Amino acid sequence: MEILDLTRYTGKYDVEGVIENFEKGGIKSGDTVEIEGMIHRIRSMKSFAFFVIRTARCLVQCVYEPGEGGTSVNNFHEEDSVRLRGKLVEDQRSALGFEIHIEEIKKLSGAAAPLPVVINKGKLNCNVDIKLDYRPASLRNPRERAAIKIVDGIINSFRTFLHGEGFTEFVPPKIVSAGAEGGADMFEVDYFGDKALLNQSPQMYKQIMVGVFKKVFTVAPVFRAEKHSTTRHINEFEGLDLEMGFIDSFEDIMAVEARFMKYMYKYLREEYAPELNILGVELPDISEVQIPVFKFMEIKEIIAKEYNREFRNPNDLDPEEERLIGEYCMKEYGSPLVFVTHYPSKKRPFYAMDDPENPKYTLSFDLLLNGAEVTTGGQRIHDYQMQLDKINARGMDAEEFSDFLMMHKYGMPPHGGLGIGLERLAMKLLGCDNIRTVTAFPRDIGRIRP
Amino acid sequence: MEILDLTRYTGKYDVEGVIENFEKGGIKSGDTVEIEGMIHRIRSMKSFAFFVIRTARCLVQCVYEPGEGGTSVNNFHEEDSVRLRGKLVEDQRSALGFEIHIEEIKKLSGAAAPLPVVINKGKLNCNVDIKLDYRPASLRNPRERAAIKIVDGIINSFRTFLHGEGFTEFVPPKIVSAGAEGGADMFEVDYFGDKALLNQSPQMYKQIMVGVFKKVFTVAPVFRAEKHSTTRHINEFEGLDLEMGFIDSFEDIMAVEARFMKYMYKYLREEYAPELNILGVELPDISEVQIPVFKFMEIKEIIAKEYNREFRNPNDLDPEEERLIGEYCMKEYGSPLVFVTHYPSKKRPFYAMDDPENPKYTLSFDLLLNGAEVTTGGQRIHDYQMQLDKINARGMDAEEFSDFLMMHKYGMPPHGGLGIGLERLAMKLLGCDNIRTVTAFPRDIGRIRP
Repeated sequence: MEILDLTRYTGKYDVEGVIENFEKGGIKSGDTVEIEGMIHRIRSMKSFAFFVIRTARCLVQCVYEPGEGGTSVNNFHEEDSVRLRGKLVEDQRSALGFEIHIEEIKKLSGAAAPLPVVINKGKLNCNVDIKLDYRPASLRNPRERAAIKIVDGIINSFRTFLHGEGFTEFVPPKIVSAGAEGGADMFEVDYFGDKALLNQSPQMYKQIMVGVFKKVFTVAPVFRAEKHSTTRHINEFEGLDLEMGFIDSFEDIMAVEARFMKYMYKYLREEYAPELNILGVELPDISEVQIPVFKFMEIKEIIAKEYNREFRNPNDLDPEEERLIGEYCMKEYGSPLVFVTHYPSKKRPFYAMDDPENPKYTLSFDLLLNGAEVTTGGQRIHDYQMQLDKINARGMDAEEFSDFLMMHKYGMPPHGGLGIGLERLAMKLLGCDNIRTVTAFPRDIGRIRP
Repeated sequence: MEILDLTRYTGKYDVEGVIENFEKGGIKSGDTVEIEGMIHRIRSMKSFAFFVIRTARCLVQCVYEPGEGGTSVNNFHEEDSVRLRGKLVEDQRSALGFEIHIEEIKKLSGAAAPLPVVINKGKLNCNVDIKLDYRPASLRNPRERAAIKIVDGIINSFRTFLHGEGFTEFVPPKIVSAGAEGGADMFEVDYFGDKALLNQSPQMYKQIMVGVFKKVFTVAPVFRAEKHSTTRHINEFEGLDLEMGFIDSFEDIMAVEARFMKYMYKYLREEYAPELNILGVELPDISEVQIPVFKFMEIKEIIAKEYNREFRNPNDLDPEEERLIGEYCMKEYGSPLVFVTHYPSKKRPFYAMDDPENPKYTLSFDLLLNGAEVTTGGQRIHDYQMQLDKINARGMDAEEFSDFLMMHKYGMPPHGGLGIGLERLAMKLLGCDNIRTVTAFPRDIGRIRP
C-alpha cells in the first residue's frame, strides 16, 4: 500500500503563476523562476539563442546561453517539451514585461518531424482545409487556439450563470427514435440492426425536464444532416439550451438571456483578456446597454425604410436584412445585440405558442448578435388540447408524437426556452468569417477527420 | 421598439428563497409569502384540503380553505400548476419547519389526464420499464428526480474543480471516421451516403488538445454498441474526461483525481443535502481520508489471502474481487475510494505507457468507488517511435492511425489522463442497483424512447 501525495501537479511550473506574482510585485527582476512548456520558436545567434516557450496561454521569451558542460543549443528543436530554471529579467519590450535568462533547461520529450504548417509566425498562413487536416499542429498556433479557448469561456459562463439562477443541468439522449421537428435532415444510425436517428435538438427532453425541475439547461451536441456547404454551417454542433417553467410571458426568457449575455461579456472581458487580445477583438462593455426589442414586422419596415430597400418576404429575415438590423441597432442604440420578436407562425415549429392577439404570429424571438441570429426561442404550448390541435392542423400525425404529448397530457406549467448554437455565437462574437475557426474538430459534408 | 425589463423572472415565486429567509429569521410565522409549483398531492377534508406543492427541490405543505367566492377545492387536480399567496405558519412536524395557509390561489395550467404511475406516495412502485416508458411522469417523483439532480451536481463539481485547476474545456467530435480503441463495438452512421462511426471515446482528441492547452477536459457523450443487457451498462453514456501534459508520473493524474473526489464529496454534501436526504444516502466526509493505492498484483494477493479465495485470472479483476477490495479498504482505511495501479499491459489499450521497470505492466490505474471501477486512467505514450512500435507489435495497421500518430510526430509532452463514466460514478456514489436510476433517458439494446 502506498500513500498518494496530494500536492502533486499543483502548478509549480505554470508560468501563469509567475506572471500573476510578477504583476503583484511578489517576483522581481533577478529572482529565479521555474517554468515548463513547448519550444514555440528558436532563434539562434552566435553564442546564444532565443527560445520562445509556449505555455497554456502565453508565449515566454527566454534566452539560452549554454555554459561549460551545458546542453548545446543544437540539441533543442521547435515543439520539444522542456522544463527550465532561470532568472527573471524585467524587459518592457516583452508582452509579459519580462524575459527569462535560462540557467538550466531539461528536454522532457521531442518532436520526430518538423511541423507541416508554420505556426510560430503570427497568423497561420494556409487555407482552411490544410488548417483542419493538420489540426494537432495548427491548433498550436496562438491565434488558432485563442478562438477555441474563447469557446471554453462561453460554455463556462453559460453554466455558471444558469447555476447561479437556480437552473439544473441534465443530459439529453443523442440517439433517438424520432425527430424533434419532425424528422427531416437527420442522420441515421444502425442501432443493433434497427434504424435510429441522431438528435437534431433536445427540444422534447428539455420540455419534459421543466415538469421535473422547473428551470433546466443542457450543453449537448446536435446533429443536422443538411447538405449545405457554407462558412456558417457545420453538421454537428454544440447546443446551449435552456427551458424554464412558470413564465408570465416569453419576455421572461428574453430577460434571462439578456442577463446571461451581460454576464458572458463581462466574464470574457475579465478572464479571457489574453485571448481576446491575441485575436484583436475588443468586446464592448454592455453592462449598461439596453438591448432593443423589435417586433418582426416592425423592424422589417424600419430597415426597408432606413436603407431604402424593397419590402420582400414577409415571413423571414434574409442574412442581409439581419446584417442591416445589427448595423442599425449599433448606430441607434449602441447595442451589439437586438431581440426580434413575434415571428410568423408558419415559420416556427409546431410547439411554438401563437400570439392570442394575432395567431399569425408567435410568442417567439430571435437574438441577433453583430447582425446575425445566434438564438431562437419562445414560449411553448403547454396545454394538451392546444398542442394536439396544432399538430393536427399542420397535417402531422399525432400518433408519432405520443412521447412528446405525454408531458402535456399529465400537466405542464406555462413554459418556454431557447437554443443557442455555441459555434455560431462564438463566431459572431469574435467576428470570424468561418465557423470552422471556432470549432476544434468541425464536421461538414466533406469532413469527418481528424 | 420596446425596452426589456431585466428584473423579470428573478425567482420571486421560488419557495427556495422563502426557505432560506425563514431559516435566517427574515420570514416569520404569520408573514405573507407567495410561491408557485405543481400540485403534487391533494388530500380533501370536509371544509378544506391539504395541497402539497412540488417546487424545483421541495414539497411544501399548504392548507386551502376557500372562503366566500373562492375557487372550490374540486377545481384543482394533481399536477396542476399553481401560484399562491398565503400565511407562513411554523409547524415543527413539517420537513421545512412551516406550512402555508393559502389566502389566494391561481391555477396557471392543468393536466388533461391523471398520471399513469403513482408518483406522490414515496418510492415509485413499478418496474423499471414502466418507469422508463413514462419518464415525463415518473421523473416527477421526488426520489426519482433526486438521483438525476445529483448527476447535475457531479457534472458541475467536475467542471468547477477543473477550471479552478487551470484546465480548459473543449468539445470533441461525436461523428468520427475511426475508433479510438480500434473500431470494435461502434455504432455506424450513414453520413451523406458514406459510413461513419459514433465515437466510443474522446481519447485521441483529448491527447491532441494537451499539445494545445496542456490541461484539458471534456464532458461529452460516448457510444458503445455492446450487446450486453445488464444493470451496469448503457449504450450511450456521458464521459467525464481529462488529460494533462508535463506530468512527472502517472501519480500526478491520480493526485488530481483524488483532489477532485474530495471536492465533489464536499460539494454534494453542502449543496445537494436535500436530495441526498430524500435518497437516504449519507456521503462520508472524506476530506481527511487518505485514499489507499495498491498495485494490481499486490491487491489481488491481499484479497485472495484475506478472503480465502483462489487466485484466478492474473490479468483482470472480476466484479466480486472489486467488491471485496472496496470492503477491505473501507474496513482497513476507512476509505470508500481506492486506486489500483499497474494493470497488465495486455489488458490496456495500445496508447498506454508500459512500466519501464516491468513492461508486462502499465503506468495506469483504476479508481474503485464503493467496490466498483468508476475511472480508468494512466500515462500515455508520448514518443512517436515508441507509439509506432507498440501499434506494430500489436499487429495493428499503423496506416489507420495516421491521424492519431500525427500529434506524436510533431512532439507531445509527457502526458496522461483519465475517463470517468458519469452514470457509473453516480450509481456507485448513491448505491443504486441499476444505472438507469441515474440516467434520465437511458439507451440500451431494447430502448431508444422516449
